[in-house]
Order: sequence, then C-alpha cells, then structure tokens
Amino acid sequence: MPSYRAPVDHVLFLLTDVLGFHRHANLPGFAEATPETVEAILREGGRFAEERLAPLNRIGDVEGCTRHDDGSVTTPAGFGAAYRDYAAGGWIGLAGDPEYGGQGLPYVLAAAMNEFVTSANMAFGMYPGLTQGAIAALTLHGSDDQKRTYLPKLMSGEWAGTMNLTEPQAGTDVGLLRTRATPNADGSFAITGSKIYISSGEHDLTENIVHLVLARIDGAPEGTKGISLFVVPKFIPAADGTAGARNAVACGAIEAKMGIHGNATCVMNYDGATGWLLGERDKGLRAMFTMMNEARLGVGIQGLAMSEVAAQNAAAYARERRQGRALGAPADPSAAADPIIVHPDIRRTLAAIRGFNLAARALTLSVGLDADIAFRSPDASAREQAEDRLGLLTPVIKGMLTDCGFENAVAAQQVFGGAGYIAGTGVEQFVRDARITMIYEGANGIQGLDLVGRKLPRDGGRAITAFFAEVGDFVSEHEGEAALAPFTRPLKKGLDDLQGATVWFMANAMMKPVNGAAGASDYLHLLGLVALGHMWGRIAAAVQAKGEAATETEKADLLFGRAFMERTMPETALRLARITAGADTIMAIPEGAF
Amino acid sequence: MPSYRAPVDHVLFLLTDVLGFHRHANLPGFAEATPETVEAILREGGRFAEERLAPLNRIGDVEGCTRHDDGSVTTPAGFGAAYRDYAAGGWIGLAGDPEYGGQGLPYVLAAAMNEFVTSANMAFGMYPGLTQGAIAALTLHGSDDQKRTYLPKLMSGEWAGTMNLTEPQAGTDVGLLRTRATPNADGSFAITGSKIYISSGEHDLTENIVHLVLARIDGAPEGTKGISLFVVPKFIPAADGTAGARNAVACGAIEAKMGIHGNATCVMNYDGATGWLLGERDKGLRAMFTMMNEARLGVGIQGLAMSEVAAQNAAAYARERRQGRALGAPADPSAAADPIIVHPDIRRTLAAIRGFNLAARALTLSVGLDADIAFRSPDASAREQAEDRLGLLTPVIKGMLTDCGFENAVAAQQVFGGAGYIAGTGVEQFVRDARITMIYEGANGIQGLDLVGRKLPRDGGRAITAFFAEVGDFVSEHEGEAALAPFTRPLKKGLDDLQGATVWFMANAMMKPVNGAAGASDYLHLLGLVALGHMWGRIAAAVQAKGEAATETEKADLLFGRAFMERTMPETALRLARITAGADTIMAIPEGAF
Repeated sequence: MPSYRAPVDHVLFLLTDVLGFHRHANLPGFAEATPETVEAILREGGRFAEERLAPLNRIGDVEGCTRHDDGSVTTPAGFGAAYRDYAAGGWIGLAGDPEYGGQGLPYVLAAAMNEFVTSANMAFGMYPGLTQGAIAALTLHGSDDQKRTYLPKLMSGEWAGTMNLTEPQAGTDVGLLRTRATPNADGSFAITGSKIYISSGEHDLTENIVHLVLARIDGAPEGTKGISLFVVPKFIPAADGTAGARNAVACGAIEAKMGIHGNATCVMNYDGATGWLLGERDKGLRAMFTMMNEARLGVGIQGLAMSEVAAQNAAAYARERRQGRALGAPADPSAAADPIIVHPDIRRTLAAIRGFNLAARALTLSVGLDADIAFRSPDASAREQAEDRLGLLTPVIKGMLTDCGFENAVAAQQVFGGAGYIAGTGVEQFVRDARITMIYEGANGIQGLDLVGRKLPRDGGRAITAFFAEVGDFVSEHEGEAALAPFTRPLKKGLDDLQGATVWFMANAMMKPVNGAAGASDYLHLLGLVALGHMWGRIAAAVQAKGEAATETEKADLLFGRAFMERTMPETALRLARITAGADTIMAIPEGAF
Repeated sequence: MPSYRAPVDHVLFLLTDVLGFHRHANLPGFAEATPETVEAILREGGRFAEERLAPLNRIGDVEGCTRHDDGSVTTPAGFGAAYRDYAAGGWIGLAGDPEYGGQGLPYVLAAAMNEFVTSANMAFGMYPGLTQGAIAALTLHGSDDQKRTYLPKLMSGEWAGTMNLTEPQAGTDVGLLRTRATPNADGSFAITGSKIYISSGEHDLTENIVHLVLARIDGAPEGTKGISLFVVPKFIPAADGTAGARNAVACGAIEAKMGIHGNATCVMNYDGATGWLLGERDKGLRAMFTMMNEARLGVGIQGLAMSEVAAQNAAAYARERRQGRALGAPADPSAAADPIIVHPDIRRTLAAIRGFNLAARALTLSVGLDADIAFRSPDASAREQAEDRLGLLTPVIKGMLTDCGFENAVAAQQVFGGAGYIAGTGVEQFVRDARITMIYEGANGIQGLDLVGRKLPRDGGRAITAFFAEVGDFVSEHEGEAALAPFTRPLKKGLDDLQGATVWFMANAMMKPVNGAAGASDYLHLLGLVALGHMWGRIAAAVQAKGEAATETEKADLLFGRAFMERTMPETALRLARITAGADTIMAIPEGAF
C-alpha cells in the first residue's frame, strides 16, 4: 500500500526563503496570506491529501468509473464523500474571485495544493482541476450574468466543470472540428456533435456539470478562425439559480484506458443541446487558451506530483528492503542483508529523482507567483515581465515536468524490482497514471513547438532575453562565492548551451522552420534544465544566507542539488548537439521507409 | 488493432551482408543452414508470428490467465492451439541437440525467431522461451539419464520448462533463499518452499511442466555457496517416459501485474516435492547462470522486439493520421490536413526508434553468432574470443536494449496522441508489456554491476580490450572513406569516451568500488552506444560494398543510421560526465533524507 506525505515544509521554505512570497503583500489576496495563514492552509491541505485522498487512490484504480444504461456515471467508492468535504473546505475556489464566492488567496497556494492532491490521488484531483479551469475561463470571458450564474456554484463545488475540445478527427488540429452551433431565437445556440477524451465528463459528484464546448456557428469560417466557445450545462440553471431542466448532452461511453481509472474519460454527445456563447463569436480558441494555459501549468504540476509520490515510496522501500551487502563492510552486520539504500545504483536513482523534484517544485511555485503578479499587480511593467516569464515557462513546465515526471515514476518503479511490476504495490499505478500527463492539454511535442515557434520569437525575443538576464545575473552575482561554485559553474555552462542553441535557431530556423521544429523538444528540455539549475542555485544561495537558521533537512537537500548539477545538468550539451544536428537527415527519409 | 510484419529481409541482409553468417559453414549445424534454408525458416517463422501469434496478443492482455480452485491455470483463448502448432513446427528445439530431438540449427536463427515471436505476442513467447532456458541448462548440466528423460519432451514442446529462483526475501540476493532440499533414500530430494514471480509457472499448454528450482540441501552452507539446482517435474516421468504421478508442487496464486497478462506469473508452492539434483551439489548458481545468460540475451531481444512492433504501429499511424499542415506548403492540398509523418517532431521520434532498432538487431544477431561459435567451434582461440564478447555484451544487451526498448515503446505511444492512452489501440499494451524486461532476469542495475564488477576486470580486461580493438580497427580501416565519415567520426568520438570512462574506472574504482557501482549503469549504456554505433558503421560499409546490388530499403535505412550517429551518439559524452562525477555526493546523502 503506497503512502504519501505532503511536502509542506519544503513549500514553506521555497515560498519564504527562496521566492520572497511575503514581499508581494501589495497584491490583492496577499495581505491576507500572512505567514501563519499560509502555513495553516498548506498544513490543512496536506493533511486532507494524505488522510482523505491517498487512501482512495488504489480503490479508484481498481474500481474505475461505471457508465450505466441511462448514461449516468458512478465514480469509485469514497470519491463522492471526499469530493463534498474537499469542496466544503473551500479548496476549489481558493484563488477565486471573492465577489463570486472565492477566497481570493494567491494562485500560487492553489498550485501547491494541486501538487498535494495529485500526488495523493491524481484521478480524483482531475474533477476539481477541470472545474478550476472552467472557473478561469468564465472569470476572464464570461458576461456578468454568466459569472453570477456559474461561478459561485463552481467555486463552492456544488457544480463541476469540463473542457470539450477534442473530436475523433480533430485533436491537436482543433481547426478540423465539426461540432455545430445553430442559433436559437432566444440568443442561445443548439449544439450538435460528439467530443472525445473528456476528462470528468460525467459523474455523480455534483448536482450539475458545466461543459465548456468548442463548436462552429453555422456559416462561420472553416479552420481555427470560425470556432466559438459555449457554456453547455448538463442541467439548465433555473431562474432561482438551481439546476433546472436536463439538457441534451449525455455521456456516450467511458474510454478504457491505461491509467487514471478513477476519472471518467467520456465520449460526450451533444444532440441539439442548449448552449450560450462564452466570450466573442469566432474567438473561442482565444478564450479556450486562457483555460488551457492554466491547465498546462496544472498538468506540469501533475508531472512533479507523480514524480514526488513515486520517489517517496521508492525511498521508503529502499530503506526497508534488504538485499545484498554494502560495498566494503556490511552496513548492518546483525541482519542477513543490508537495506538496498546502501547501494550506489539505488542512491543515484533516488538522488536523481529528488534532485529533480526539489527544483521542479521551486520552478512551479515561482511561475505560480508570476501568474499572481500577471493577473493582480497594479504595476504594468511588473505585469508584463511576469506575463512574459509565465508564457515562456508554461510550455517548459508542461513538457519537461511531465516527461521527467513519468521517467522518474518509471525509475522509482525500478527500485522495487519485481515488486514494482505487481499491481498491489501501487507504484505501477503511478507509472500508468503519470503517462497521460505527457499527452493531454497538448502532447509534449506541441509544447516544444509552442515554445520555439511562438514564445521564443514573440515581441522580438523579449521573454527569452529576460530569462537569459535572470539566470546570467544570478551567476554573475554568485560566481565568486566558493560555497556556491558547485551550482554556478554548471549553471553557467548550461546557460552557454542554451544561448548557443538560441543563436543556432536564429541563424538556421528563421529561413528554414523545419530546423526549429526538429529541435523544439530538445530546446524545451534544454531551457528546462537551465531553469531547474537556476532554481538549485537560488535554493543553495538561500540556505547559505540562512546560515545557522537553516534546518538539517534544508542543508541535506543541497546534496540532491549537487547531484543534480553533477549528473543531470551535463544533459544540456546533448540537447544542444541534437538541436544543431538540424532537420536535413530526418526530412530526407522517404515516408515509406519509416 | 495493432499489426506486425516480421523484419525477415532485414535479418537476411544482416546475416548475409553484414555478419558473414555463411562463412561459418565449418560449425556444426551451419552446413545445413544454406542461404535457401535460412530464408525459408525465417519466412515461415515470420509468417507464423504475424498470422498466428499477433492476433492473440490483445486477447491475451484482456483475458489474462485464470487460476482455478484446484490450482490449475487456464491460458487465454487460442494460446493452446497456437502453442501446439508452434511446437509442431519444430521451433522450440530449433537450435537443440539433434541427439535429443533438436534440429541442431544455429542459435542465431532461434534468436531471430525469438524477436519475431515477442513482437507478435510477448506473453505467449515466454512459454516456449522458458522452455528453451530449461533445455540449455539440462543440455549443459544434466546427466545422460536426465537428458534422455527431459530433452526430447521439452524440444518437442510436449512438456514445458520454468526457472524458480525468487523468493519473497530473496530476489537479487539469491543467497538468502530458504527453500530446502532434504535427501530421500533413493537419491532424490524432497523440496519444500515457496517461489514467487515464476513466469509460465502453471498452465494448460502442455501435459507436463519441468521446474528447475534453486534450493539448499540440509546442512549446506548459508549464502550462495550452499545452493543447488533441482529438476522438479509437475508429473514425475514414468518408466515409459510419459508423465506419471502428480508431484507435490502447485500454483498458489497468479500475480496481478502491469502487463504480460497472457503469461501466468505464479507463486509456486513446493510441499516436499520430489526433485533430482541437476549438476553438482552446492554449485546450483553456476548451473542456473547458464540458463540465466541465455535468458538475459533473450530478454534483451524482447526489448528490441517491443521497440520494433511499437515503431511499426506508430509509423503506420503517422502515415494515416491527419492533423495540421507541413511547414511551408501543404503536403496534400486535396485533404483537410496532412499526415502527421510530415512533421519534424514526429519524424525525429520515429527516426530515433528505427535508428536504434536496426542497429540493435545487428548487435543481437552478432552476439547470437558469438554464442554459436562459443559453443560449437572446434577452434579454442575462436571459442575464447567469442565467449569473451558474449560475456561482455550479454549484460549490455539485456540492460540497454530493454531500457531503450521500453523508452521507444513510450515514444511510439506518444506519436498516437490521445489514442495512445486508450486500451483498444494496442500501443499502451506494448508499453506495459515492455516494462517487465527492465526488471526480470536481473534488474538492469544488476546488469551494470555485472558488466563493471565482473566482466570488465575478468582475465585482465581481455574482453574489453578486444572490444576496443574491434571498434578501433573498424574506424582505422574506414575513416579515410568519405562516404562513411558520417559514421566513423561519431563512432571514434564515442570510442574515445568509452576508453576515457574505462581509464577513469581503473584510476578511481579499483581502490574505491562505490565509484564503479555509481557509474555502472551509465557505463553499460556508453558501451552499448558504441556497440550500436559500430553496428551502424558495419551496416553502412556493407551497403557501400554492395554498390548497385543494395536494395532501396537498405540504402534508405542508412538515413536512420545517420540520424542515430547525429542525434543519439552524442549521449556518450553525457554518460562519461556522469561516470566521472563519481560516488562522493550520492554516498554523502543521509539515508533519512531520501
């Protein structure tokens, strides 16, 4: 039976000592988030994840969701009660607008909580997770009436939300979608079509489900320019705000899939369902991307979360499982064998995962803070800077943290040996669950293309230039400090590789975009490595600055940072080599030869 | 529904044009293996895999194996008939001793066939696979009587075999085993204990199952020095050679596991079962390693096989699935979108897998030939050379081909986008099935330790020195040829890195073995990269030498080789950097901090 401890102390350390959370008291919501409040929230959230959600994780995998003949869906035993308590705790609207029932607290706290919830029970976390995406889209694009109708119900958790993009012929290429919206006389639309892979599409957790659906209004242009976003509630809100008449939308099937069995991944059929335009006509993709960007950050956090829970369980197993002897002298001569944590091969595996997790958490929280500044700061230049960093790092966090999160879950499984392949151990579920994070909300290849094709050139390269300065300034400031040299030296080398790759793209990809596309995924990882290396540098500098006030854990954690700089950072050179290999060879291969 | 085409033409090209198979006509069995015979065998085997085994793969996953209350086990529908036809085709005894009913053909052909069978249906392939392991152990260690009793039945497929090593407390550390063997008056032993993770442990495919079981004879030393190997048949052979009285061995449970559901992974309970010593008393591990080495090679081939079938299906999907447009101009303006194979990110993914597969096949066949020479050559020096290479490369093939095979299955799954996560597509099964190859027959960490701790220093480093010469000679011979420069240049760089790592171990790991253990897995991959790069060099040289006689496929395949040299070989530098990082940091981490 796997276990989970929420890394509350680490989050508090990062927010307080590394990221300067409490310097942002000028932002709305931050004044209320005093150190005591933040700690209380995180401890309570961590406890909920540990005590209420983690015990349901395996049940969710084994039971899965059941669709009945009437199209209704039953979630696994215990999910309903846990969901109601989760909602009652105010977690869904934690960062939501207080005008509509949210708590108005910083988004970065919701990001931390999302990690805890996902580590404990990823399939469960996707129900409130999708709702939070719907809240974001409605907050930014909804009319006042729509906000009043939906936001309080969504934030309280009485109603849930979903995103409906994909159709069988339209996945990444959403412009191919065929779902139609035909205007009704009253200003609403009749939505007709079929959507697939709809997470949390139908369930028994809430009294209503608010579907956000992409569709094409009759007569609108083909392609992405003719797509609009609609609110299509399962039950149409009555005048008194309660869930009223049943709408013509139904779950047609639940997909049988590799993992996240506790979440109902649905085929959703819209049969002239009543929907209302959300945001501007034909500008639905823009509205959807609001939701998508927050969702992408959330999925990146899922990658970290799965890596974290897998690592915790692998470390616990490695301390307990006894096989073989330490090289040299037995570590525990009184027993027949030593715990396998004495073996260097086990240690390098666990250290690589922990070295990643600790820096990845810093990175997700730092970008969570950017989101707060971007949406809440009164200072236009601070907003622009934060938006740039958020935009640049969102695809990196989505792509790299899920690629590495999955790999780390696989590495953690390896520590278990044969037991890792057996269902009851629980670690193979982490691997199967984590696998989807590389695919949904834009497969990771798309994240690379978004980074290299859109985020890099935008505004004359302003965001990447600022990132170079951010990292370069850190190196300049600290490279003279001997204690930080194990961090600044490899970071400087990584930054050189990243700048080299950027220059190579400028020279080789602007006229020949296939060179950019062929290296996009490697560039994403290269940038991610430098960002994580920089986080380790900042963590080391913070521990250094704390001096005697640093805890034993904070000091010991720096060894994971050193291992990361020594063993993981050299990957930047490999990524650079792949990028500069260019596209010529792979584009020359005849289609039939593959 | 996934599909499979056995790469028969590629195997024929490798055997004939690259590996000089027909130069070994002096070896027993090779004279009969004329070019026509080899082609006929491989085509027939390929067809059997494609037509009979591949269609049962998904059924095996969905149905799994069922244990009944009496301990009997039912395999998935269709497995029984396929097994009988497979056995009747003579495939199990293909390379077996003709004196006992084998066909006496070269082992390398059985290795090729094992790839086909695994690609088509890995869970099925493990039934005859384990039998082949038992055949190897009995052939080398059995008494004449044991050989006469068991080998003809095993080779004909009437009986099956298993390996029984693992116990709950004794996995990698087999010396901890507790299964006891108490001498009976008639020279047999009463075997008592419980074994876990026994592949093909119980089933309904054959009339008898011959278990090879590790146990400790009463009074034998503790640890690995007191372990003996026993033959424990499910039904004790009667005087007339048929399966006689039921022995006291039974399947206690089938493990619920991540994949290979079609294979019964059993808990086997021995309750005073009658067994006979196989080989020398207390020397059971040595005998088991005979079986294990062949099994490790076989598992490496499984890694390749899963990579191959996953790649075939991903390429087919990429040619068919239409999303987005080629950069620049549409590839197919008549349709709403282009096939995704036009996208550089899809191409680099598929090219990386194919570039690996084609060279990995060459490597497995070259080592298969070494096994033939090692066991059949009349020339002692040729035998020694082949044994050295076989010993050196077996852990590399096991460890690297399964690590990369799994990664490649994951990458192939990624090409499918959302569809890759859905059970019916079939590709997620490849991922789940492939995962076990990194674990069983010695988890891959153990392969690295075997390589660095045993194979490298053995005989004063004779095997690795010969490997350096093999690769170095190839580079020297061809580095002047401009057409081969894309292969020889990166290969030379890779060889430099490998030699650098070896020298570093000599200087840093002999006095401080943790430095060797910490870098063992990276060294295994580094050696594997150089071995695969060398194979690409040899393939390129062979195609070059064929000139106009080379087929279009052979010529187009070289592009995969170039992509491998450009994009995969630079990984050698990363591996070297990790090795030279040493063990200091990871060994300094307090156990509680992980």
